[in-house]
Amino acid sequence: MRKFYFTPGPSQLYYTVEEHLKNALKEGIPSISHRSKDYEKIHHHTVEAIRSLLALPDDYHIFFTSSATEIWERTIQNMVDTESFHLVNGAFSKRFFEIAENYRINAMSQVAEEGEVVEAEELLIPETAELIAITHNETSTGASQPVEDIKKIRKAFPDQLISLDVVSSAPYVNLDYNLIDTAYFSVQKCFGLPAGLGVWIVNNRCLQKAQTLLNKDRVIGSYHSLPSLLEKSIKNQTPETPNALAVYLLGKVATDMVDKGIEQIRRETEYKAAVLYQAFEQSNILKPFVAKELHRSKTTLVAETTIPSKEIISKLSEKSFVVGSGYGKFKDKHIRIANFPTHSKEHVEILADELLKIKK
Amino acid sequence: MRKFYFTPGPSQLYYTVEEHLKNALKEGIPSISHRSKDYEKIHHHTVEAIRSLLALPDDYHIFFTSSATEIWERTIQNMVDTESFHLVNGAFSKRFFEIAENYRINAMSQVAEEGEVVEAEELLIPETAELIAITHNETSTGASQPVEDIKKIRKAFPDQLISLDVVSSAPYVNLDYNLIDTAYFSVQKCFGLPAGLGVWIVNNRCLQKAQTLLNKDRVIGSYHSLPSLLEKSIKNQTPETPNALAVYLLGKVATDMVDKGIEQIRRETEYKAAVLYQAFEQSNILKPFVAKELHRSKTTLVAETTIPSKEIISKLSEKSFVVGSGYGKFKDKHIRIANFPTHSKEHVEILADELLKIKK
Repeated sequence: MRKFYFTPGPSQLYYTVEEHLKNALKEGIPSISHRSKDYEKIHHHTVEAIRSLLALPDDYHIFFTSSATEIWERTIQNMVDTESFHLVNGAFSKRFFEIAENYRINAMSQVAEEGEVVEAEELLIPETAELIAITHNETSTGASQPVEDIKKIRKAFPDQLISLDVVSSAPYVNLDYNLIDTAYFSVQKCFGLPAGLGVWIVNNRCLQKAQTLLNKDRVIGSYHSLPSLLEKSIKNQTPETPNALAVYLLGKVATDMVDKGIEQIRRETEYKAAVLYQAFEQSNILKPFVAKELHRSKTTLVAETTIPSKEIISKLSEKSFVVGSGYGKFKDKHIRIANFPTHSKEHVEILADELLKIKK
Repeated sequence: MRKFYFTPGPSQLYYTVEEHLKNALKEGIPSISHRSKDYEKIHHHTVEAIRSLLALPDDYHIFFTSSATEIWERTIQNMVDTESFHLVNGAFSKRFFEIAENYRINAMSQVAEEGEVVEAEELLIPETAELIAITHNETSTGASQPVEDIKKIRKAFPDQLISLDVVSSAPYVNLDYNLIDTAYFSVQKCFGLPAGLGVWIVNNRCLQKAQTLLNKDRVIGSYHSLPSLLEKSIKNQTPETPNALAVYLLGKVATDMVDKGIEQIRRETEYKAAVLYQAFEQSNILKPFVAKELHRSKTTLVAETTIPSKEIISKLSEKSFVVGSGYGKFKDKHIRIANFPTHSKEHVEILADELLKIKK
């Protein structure tokens, strides 16, 4: 029985991926030189497809790394001299904060209770912070920082660099990218691709910051420093031999999403989220972990469970649905359900029905 | 017309890869959680297959990164406090040296003429160097450092950490890994896999060095520091969401190679190299770039051309063979031919014939 993955990443492949993978093999994509015109064409196509899908401003660059985890590290290396500030809403935003600490940065944070977000009104960000790190969608708890909050932070801190984690919310999140200086995601979430590629969006202010640090003789990394990434990306190349197959597949899936229409994807995401949250509310073994409706993620939905979550996971598995366990200390107390573009309305409706069949 | 890639990486896929890829999709490998038992099994299988193929001693660890380029950076971060020494035989060994410089290390080097290697007898390595970086097979020039030289360096410098680049020579190189402390390769060369994975072999002396640096409050990176890699690898996991598909495919191909027999692979590699070098010698438009036979690579063969190399590349392309151009300043003066385990004797013999048909 073929399983259907509702795990919050890696997740179900986007429904067109297998076909694109077959074509990639036919075209010899894994064998072509990363310094050839053929590769440059693929690279350029992927960058432009993402730019179009996310409606990125022209002066924002798109770089490829191996993971979003890597982007946390490269952000600290390239954009912070002494001080960063992190809104911590859960395990992943905390991990970014810890990476800043690993680099002996004066990393500061404001920490929300799990299942909540730091409210924009309560924020105490020191003016000296060079970078403000915000997580739009905290995959560990299902808490989402409203875009309105990001607007408020931008207004209050026009000079700071704002970094936005959209790892599990791009391209769903409807964001004016001018509000932020850098954003990033990994391809195994909403894009439904095999893991192994991070996508890093940066504006020229980020590049200038890296150059300033370099001029001060600071170490900003090597092959994946911003100047090095820029130098190659101008030629539609990467500093190292890239995961060209992943770059190719990402371009294909982003184009499929552009063709489908981002508005359609957003409407479907909201419909499916409503179906699932309604099931959480109606179930006698589940309730949404995030109390405030405004903060509930539309792409990674987390429910508290009154019976051990592994029992629920096991029952759904019999119906060939794979959902995620809770993260960290919530392992057996939560289930986490991905609501990504590849998850069809029909499958979500069946999953919601199956959830309601499970009783105490 | 399907092309056949003799480029020195990315290159022709290993002949079993397509089948393994199909099975991976059937088994849902790209969708499984990297914190699940299913992933741990795959990870463990791959590590053990490489260990067996390379006859690695038990106390050597195998970690996964995104590229060999990344391993250069992580080696400097984790194994060098102030001084590294690099044997530079071409563009790639030079790049490692430059990454050390990017990290404000006192990086020293001894540079061979291109097409040659630094002779062990001429080496002037300061006792203060903490790390000695050797490149077994310089992919840019086709010059190979004999394993005998590595033995001599080990004997003369028992306390230094020795790093060996086997990017384009593993698993062909017949090496007692006890001679070195760390070695690394990428999967798009001899293993015939899509690019996007680096394999890092380290012994406990490397781990101890990283711990010493950490105790001195030195920055050794974050998620891909040696202590972080070790912590997860003990559980057959990785710190970040890994390129699980690549880890799976590597395990399958390494197992195929174990089944075929490493001795058989080595014999075939040597036979095919002899066929190609003979063609270089007999041709009136080619000659081996590496003058000394002892230093000629068996896996990446480089020929100087008396006509512009693009003419040769173009003629071979009509026969569906893709060979590499020269590297850097040699772009139009060399051809580079990969001789990897996926390249069959029959194909190599036809390629050699086609080379001989091209005349001035």
